[in-house]
Amino acid sequence: MPPFYRAYPALASRGAGVCKPARTGPYLAGMTGPALTHMEAETREAPDVAARLIERASKPLAELGARLRASPPRFAITAGRGSSGAASLFAKYLFEQHLGIVTASATPSLSSIYGGTLDLRESLVVAISQSGQSPDLVGYCRAAGGQGALRVGMINVAGSNLEGAVDLALPLEAGPEKSVAATKSCLAAMLLCFGLVAHWRNDREMIAAFEGSPDVLGRALALEWPGASDFMTGDAPLYTIGRGPGLAIAKEAALKLKETAGVFAQAYSSAEVLHGPFALAGPNLRVLIFAQRDAAREGLDKIAEAFEEAGSRAMLVAWPPNETQPAMELIGLLTRFYLLANATTLQRGRSPDQPPRLRKVTETR
Amino acid sequence: MPPFYRAYPALASRGAGVCKPARTGPYLAGMTGPALTHMEAETREAPDVAARLIERASKPLAELGARLRASPPRFAITAGRGSSGAASLFAKYLFEQHLGIVTASATPSLSSIYGGTLDLRESLVVAISQSGQSPDLVGYCRAAGGQGALRVGMINVAGSNLEGAVDLALPLEAGPEKSVAATKSCLAAMLLCFGLVAHWRNDREMIAAFEGSPDVLGRALALEWPGASDFMTGDAPLYTIGRGPGLAIAKEAALKLKETAGVFAQAYSSAEVLHGPFALAGPNLRVLIFAQRDAAREGLDKIAEAFEEAGSRAMLVAWPPNETQPAMELIGLLTRFYLLANATTLQRGRSPDQPPRLRKVTETR
Repeated sequence: MPPFYRAYPALASRGAGVCKPARTGPYLAGMTGPALTHMEAETREAPDVAARLIERASKPLAELGARLRASPPRFAITAGRGSSGAASLFAKYLFEQHLGIVTASATPSLSSIYGGTLDLRESLVVAISQSGQSPDLVGYCRAAGGQGALRVGMINVAGSNLEGAVDLALPLEAGPEKSVAATKSCLAAMLLCFGLVAHWRNDREMIAAFEGSPDVLGRALALEWPGASDFMTGDAPLYTIGRGPGLAIAKEAALKLKETAGVFAQAYSSAEVLHGPFALAGPNLRVLIFAQRDAAREGLDKIAEAFEEAGSRAMLVAWPPNETQPAMELIGLLTRFYLLANATTLQRGRSPDQPPRLRKVTETR
Repeated sequence: MPPFYRAYPALASRGAGVCKPARTGPYLAGMTGPALTHMEAETREAPDVAARLIERASKPLAELGARLRASPPRFAITAGRGSSGAASLFAKYLFEQHLGIVTASATPSLSSIYGGTLDLRESLVVAISQSGQSPDLVGYCRAAGGQGALRVGMINVAGSNLEGAVDLALPLEAGPEKSVAATKSCLAAMLLCFGLVAHWRNDREMIAAFEGSPDVLGRALALEWPGASDFMTGDAPLYTIGRGPGLAIAKEAALKLKETAGVFAQAYSSAEVLHGPFALAGPNLRVLIFAQRDAAREGLDKIAEAFEEAGSRAMLVAWPPNETQPAMELIGLLTRFYLLANATTLQRGRSPDQPPRLRKVTETR
């Protein structure tokens, strides 16, 4: 059985310790910050967010699931920017893998700048937005209104413009998010997508996994990744790698590393990384691999080995065996990763809550 | 009217010269290479490739176009890895913008490793592959065979496995490609996608633009980008940026910079780059913007200015005004970019034809 954590070459044997994000005291020497960064505090709220989602979203999800079973869409479209874009990609893989529904990424520029219309008869549109304010997403959903799509919004802030532009709004239940870098709201969106698929299939095991998510997220926060802080030290650029739904996790991780820690990181599918990007393998490139326990696992191990052979440092993280569904394992790994990104950012003398040049709401047109 | 070339801060005024890739003599001092690299020679074949495509593909495209008008697909799926993946994304934007057909990226892992099936009734699947050998693409198209999709392959090598797994194979007509880094075959795939849309719409102006492509590609090879070689000097990572179909060009450019020049480059939509990635803006980040002359142009100019204000060097390239269609402008810019990537690679003491660790055919499963 493959290990659920491995660093290549074995960092742990070289004396690297367990990653322990600071939990008390001002978060940077000489700074008068809070005891926890917002990013860490909000990540640690994730099990509570999951519990609220199960309590409040289960009934609407069951109703929506029954409606979708009764009249299945011919295809789906998911929409979101930034971290919500990662959640959208996660939804695409879940819809295709578990429902057989082809899912496209929305191109909001089509309506917002090109003024075109799409044939959306019998389609499902899922728009994800923490703030619910992005003008392009709102415009996209408004334009979809006349085209025959069922529009579902996953939104954290009640009363937003997006809420008024969809047929059904599902609250993310993440509560106020103070950190510019989204964490709990992205986890909530991924959980909600998983819950939607579980109820759409009316799949007992998936529904049970959804209802067990507070436990998974709680365990995720306590997961030990020996050597992880050593691995994250330094300026070398980094590839984050996943396969299937793991690619969405890798994308969100790369975004966070850029946004908070200032590390140049890019996500790849393990199927894509050998087409060109592998040319950069070598000592000046690190590789972080998110490996769910499914048919993709063997290939992910091989990719780790290929990079190791090329001289790169690689870290592969996975979930302890046989505890939950592969997609839920990935949400757990992302939860734990947020703590690592927070700690890495602090080590680099930066504040994860206030990334340079970014605002909480980016109003893309 | 905005300029069709601009470097921010204005590099040209600081005495930077016109980029002139070496055309004669061994390509690296001390090396016994050919007079031209394969990459440069193959890029320079692009106008001939376009002429062959027009001669040989126009009739099959007209027939396919008539068939698609007679029974339009409900949605489309495009598939391809590496440079063919960029051409697939180009097709997505063209299908959505000019035909209103929602287009998804294929997830070949669904059939190749997860064994799932998709509801593909009344869909169009376009698979793009230079070699026609990728097992996952072949498997995806084979699996789609029983699901009710019309499967079109765009393939450069005759008699490939992919040819046997599609309903209609359209040859890329690029001729043998010796460079590991694809150039003319990627341009051919993008031209073929443009030609398909032109004939599907039966749009006189687009068909004329397709038929004028040898001229556009010829002019592209002679395009002057003053200061470009200065801009490309150095190790600083780079964002390539586009909007709409320009994002596909930016993706291919970033892939080439990694693959050949060893520069860490990543592509972003101008709509996405302010969600997180902008945190890395500053003197250690360069930005290369591909700007077609359409409704996206104004936003692309603003992105260039935002990065310039943050201290990054930016270079925006566009096509001389009013000569052809926006999508064709972008194919021209990519043609010219290939010469720049080739020259940059040589400047860095590398061979563009033999990127480290890569093979011509990557057999992803």
